[in-house]
Formats: sequence, C-alpha cells, structure tokens
Amino acid sequence: MTPSVSHEFARPTSARTARLASELAASGVDVAFAFPGSDLKYLLGEELHSHERLTTLVVPAQGTPTLVLPDLEATAAVHELAGAAGAAVRTWQDGEDAIAMALSVGGTLDGNASAVAVSDDAPARHVVPLQDSLGARVRLLTPVLDTLRAVKSEEEIADLAAAGEAIDRVHRRMAEFLQVGRTEREVAELIDAAIVEEGHTHAEFIIVGSGPNGADPHHDVSDRRIESGDIVVVDIGGPLPSGYNSDSTRTYSMGEPSEQVAREYAELEEAQARSRAAVRPGISANEIDAAGRRHLESVGLGERFIHRTGHGIGLSVHESPYISSDSDTVLAEGMAFSIEPGIYLRGSWGARLEDIVVVTSDGVRELNNAPRGLTVL
Amino acid sequence: MTPSVSHEFARPTSARTARLASELAASGVDVAFAFPGSDLKYLLGEELHSHERLTTLVVPAQGTPTLVLPDLEATAAVHELAGAAGAAVRTWQDGEDAIAMALSVGGTLDGNASAVAVSDDAPARHVVPLQDSLGARVRLLTPVLDTLRAVKSEEEIADLAAAGEAIDRVHRRMAEFLQVGRTEREVAELIDAAIVEEGHTHAEFIIVGSGPNGADPHHDVSDRRIESGDIVVVDIGGPLPSGYNSDSTRTYSMGEPSEQVAREYAELEEAQARSRAAVRPGISANEIDAAGRRHLESVGLGERFIHRTGHGIGLSVHESPYISSDSDTVLAEGMAFSIEPGIYLRGSWGARLEDIVVVTSDGVRELNNAPRGLTVL
Repeated sequence: MTPSVSHEFARPTSARTARLASELAASGVDVAFAFPGSDLKYLLGEELHSHERLTTLVVPAQGTPTLVLPDLEATAAVHELAGAAGAAVRTWQDGEDAIAMALSVGGTLDGNASAVAVSDDAPARHVVPLQDSLGARVRLLTPVLDTLRAVKSEEEIADLAAAGEAIDRVHRRMAEFLQVGRTEREVAELIDAAIVEEGHTHAEFIIVGSGPNGADPHHDVSDRRIESGDIVVVDIGGPLPSGYNSDSTRTYSMGEPSEQVAREYAELEEAQARSRAAVRPGISANEIDAAGRRHLESVGLGERFIHRTGHGIGLSVHESPYISSDSDTVLAEGMAFSIEPGIYLRGSWGARLEDIVVVTSDGVRELNNAPRGLTVL
Repeated sequence: MTPSVSHEFARPTSARTARLASELAASGVDVAFAFPGSDLKYLLGEELHSHERLTTLVVPAQGTPTLVLPDLEATAAVHELAGAAGAAVRTWQDGEDAIAMALSVGGTLDGNASAVAVSDDAPARHVVPLQDSLGARVRLLTPVLDTLRAVKSEEEIADLAAAGEAIDRVHRRMAEFLQVGRTEREVAELIDAAIVEEGHTHAEFIIVGSGPNGADPHHDVSDRRIESGDIVVVDIGGPLPSGYNSDSTRTYSMGEPSEQVAREYAELEEAQARSRAAVRPGISANEIDAAGRRHLESVGLGERFIHRTGHGIGLSVHESPYISSDSDTVLAEGMAFSIEPGIYLRGSWGARLEDIVVVTSDGVRELNNAPRGLTVL
C-alpha cells in the first residue's frame, strides 16, 4: 500500500497559500495545518494521499509554508507541487516525532504561537497528538479557508464549466441508458460508464430514482425495474481530471406524463428559474432559496420541497456557500453552487432540477444547459 | 450524493460493543465516539458511509450504545445493523444540534462524564465542535479498541483466510499478466481486473516494481516496460465483500535469475521462514522481526532490509499489531499480521516476500500459500 500523487502538471498555487496566510493573520490564527483532503488539494492544486503517516501543509500567518511528510513519499513530483505552492519541504523518517517537526516549522514550539487551526478532514489520529503536544485545543480552518475556496478564479470556473459540459453530454445521452425494463442499478451502471466516457475520472454519485423511489431525495439506486409511465430522477456527477466536480439533476418521464405531473413539473421548473434569476453579487443565499420556495408555496407545492436549494461546488461536491433558508452568506462574484429545488410525493413520484451556476459581475452564468423540461423518453 | 450501507446480512456484533464498554471502564474512559471508518465498521460489522453530516456510534462505559445519525439516513438496514450491535438509534434533523445530541446520549452533559475518546478516523469537522461543547480535549480510542481489533474471532480468521486464498489465486495466474514488453501500469491493470475476478470488491493497492523500481519499497507502478532479466516485486491486495483484506507479495524473475540474485533471494526466503517459525502466543513482536533480520545480518544482507517486518491486517490493510524492532506487543492467539521482509539494492533490483499469518494456540497458521520461491516467468 503506497501513497501517490497524480502526474498532472502542477499549477502555480503560491497565491493561494499567500492569501491564506494573510487571512490567518486577519483572523487571529497563528498557524494552519492542512491535512490530505480537499483543503490541501486546493492549496497544492493537486491531491496528496496519505495513509496513517503524517502529511500536512503547515501555513503560518507569518513565515514560509512548509509541507511536512514521510521521507519515502517526498518524490520529485511532490517537491514540484510544494515549490509551485511557495512551500518548503521537510521530511521525517520512521521513529522521528513528526508532530513535533510540524509544530516546530509552524513556529508553535517557541511559545509565541498558540492559535492553531486544522482542516476539516484532519483525522483524530493526528489532531489528538498535535493538541497533546501543544497543550491546547485546536480550532477549525474552515471559517477562514471556506471563504477563499468559495470564490473561484477564472481558471477554476473554466474547470467547473468543462465539468458542467461533460455531465450535460451524459444527460443528453440518457435515452441510451434509461429504458423501460432495466433496473435502476442497470441504468446506473450504463450511466457510470458514460460519465467516464464523457471525461470524468469517475462517477462520484449516481441517483436513479424511479416512480416512488424518486420521492426520496436520499435514494440512490435499487433493483426496481423502470416501468412505462415512471417519472425518474437522475442526479449524477463526479470530478474531471482537474479535480473540479460536476453535479446535475434532470427528471425524465417514461412516456407522456399525466396532466398533473406535467403541471407540477412546470411549477418546479419555474421555481428553479426564479432562484437562478435571483443570483447576483450582494444578494444573500437565503434570498436565492426564498425566490424558488415562495413560488412553490404560491402554487400549493411548498410542503413538497423538503430540502435546501443548493450547495457550493468545486474540488468538493458539497462546499460553501450553502443555499438555504438559514444562510445569510452574501454572494460574491466567482461563487459557484447548485440550484436544485425538488418536489416529492411520498410513495408516488418526485422531481428535481439541478444546475450549477456561477455568480458573475452582474448576474449569473449557468454551467449546465441540457434541456430543463421534463424529458419524455 | 448520498450515503449508503451495503446490503449484506448484519452480523451479531453486540459482543463487540459490550467488550468495548468494559475495556473503556477499565481504561478510565467515560464514553467513546466511533465515526465512519474501520473502527465503526468493526463495531457495527458493516461499513457506514457519511459525508459532512454527523454520524457516530456513542459507546458509554456504562449504559446503552447509541447510533446517532441524520434522520434521512436511518434506513431499515441501518436500524438492523444498530440492533445487531445492541445499540439504540437517535436521529437528528437539519437544524438540530447533532453534537449536543451525541454528547447527551453519551451522558456527558450531566457533568459526570468527561474522559471522551474518539476513533482515529474522526474528522476535525466533528472533533473540534465536540471539544468546544465539552470544553475539554478528547483522547484517542485507539489504545483501547486496537487491542480488541487485533485479536480476530474464528469468523474473522475465516474471512482473512478467504482473502488470502483469493490473492493467492491472483499470484498463481501471474504469468498471464506479467510479461516482457508490457509496462508496469499495463500489468497492474490486468492484475486489477484479476483481483476483482478472484472475489475482491476492488484492488486496494497494486505495486509492480520491475528492475530498479523494485529497489524502492514505496514504488507503486510506472510506465517502465518489463524487460527480459528483470526481477519484479508484485505486492497486491484488497478487501473481499466481508470487508477483510488480503495483502501478499511475491517476487518474479523474467527469465533465469543470475546466481547472485538466486542466492540472495534464497536468504530472503530463509529469513521470512524464520520469522514465520518464531510466531506463537506469548512472544513479542520485536522477536518476530529479529528472527528474520538476524538471519539477513548473518549473511551480510542486514543493511538491505530497510523497513519493518510487518503490520496487522483485518478491516484495515494496516492495523495493530505492528511487527517491528521497537514493538514490544506480546502476541496472542487470534492476532493476524504480515511477515514481509525485503532486500533492496538501490538502482538495481529488489525482492520482498509477504504472507499473512495468524497466531494459533500453539504456533502459526499461514494464510498465503502461493509458492514462496523466486518464480521464473
């Protein structure tokens, strides 16, 4: 079993570590430790895997960031990554105290630094020894780093747009996969292959919710066979080689839908359009949620919209900003998130419509553009 | 994106939670929180995935274990799992304080409980809020739970034996995959498919180290083409549907090896046999390491054996007990671990020989039985 770093070209990410350092200083954090996971991927521009051994990027508010990792894993590719992030490399051998090394490069052993933040994904196996050495509790890096990660650069938006186009191509091919007589699982297997064919490294999630299963927003797949007349929710996505994710939901009708289903779906489509239309810099996330939710309430479907409107997306499928009734995050240019209202009738059918959008200087850019109507197959 | 529980039949795992509770009491821990990962899988008998939402099995030293998870994820299968583990289920809705609920079912809000332990895999996103609510640092559950996990039940040993047979079948088929002219990566792709064909759910790791690459114990695969005369280290494994892992290394020679390689490999084989032969209840892990290492030292190869002898295996590929010169763990019947000495000549070639063994009442049982010699292909 061995850790690895992928062999893509390293991006110049030193601006990210520099911005983090300056945000840390402004937030009263002396040093941040980013462990393998999406925060470290953001800071380095590429994934760094690790097993039980300590690997962490130490970013002090003042001073040089340093990547601390096992000596055996410090390949040329890792040195290149660290260099692009403006970070030094310090390696440790089995038997050395890796935690002490990480604290020391973070300047926390001289008694001057004590406010230490760790990334969300930091495992207890490293956090607990780190706290024990420090003699103090750590805090989360999330409030500082989420703000940076939520606002995407032009390059990141291009990556998300490419992911959106890739998943749109899968939805446009849905007639190949979603056919009466196949089980949801069989359909999902075909979609899984298409997600890769269209440029993703893998499918991160595939929901095929047919008939009554479509009424459960947390359903994934089952052995239920698709029947004529079914309404089918298909929610799919995953990362491109860039690491940036797609996530798009379309709802399909196996044959002409009933008049009631068609009418209610049209209201869902209108609700989603209203939330999209509300997106602009300066508006708060709960207003995006409210724009669609108010419409569904006005047509008597409010109680059937039982979840939040959306979530940020980037290197993680779910990240800041969350678009919900209790989020007062103020939207800024460059933020990317899903708008995915749904209506669910327990035991009967459900529908959801999900696009990824980006906040532009004066409004919104849609990254998913497969037809939004109830597609009849 | 949705969490899931696999649909295997739930094992009766209540004995595990009961033993943990009694070990907690003996260790001065008031309550343990096991988060998704191998510890939780051990306690529940099956994997429980989770994304950003809190899912944790709360095991108090006194009282009823309780699985706390999001309401939407509390399926019938999850209730069945919890029941088999002797645990109650408490669910939380979006907007509720899940951490407060978990602390309250653990009895930690009444001021009587304060020594709280979390599993190794617990992510900072939950550990930090938990500590903040508690007003105190947590400790690791590892010292308590590792001891329980290290000693396998008969059922677990049967699962490990099945995994050993599955990976042995892959090694016995190596001539199909490992051929002159293919790259290491191409060989690894063929092995990957065979690992699944022979009964694994997936390959967890595949090392194909040919020629000079075999001299790096942390090499995985590269685009180097296999050449006639290469010595090739193949270290492979992964989980069966039971969740229990295989891990076995064999070394292959592409054509007849030189006399020196053959002689040195024979010494490695002897060293590995000596470590295996030393295994019995009551011996300490460092004596297993020393038995093989002393032999290599006696024939002048000691400096080329640059890593520890082995690691425990079960639901994790690497777990307690570790077999190294600095481990004084006393072996007990039911412990399962690898014995994998290697010799490495930088820039030239390397060899490693790895079997999983189990401590029996009076000695050792080998779970890997593919030929241990340097197989000429």
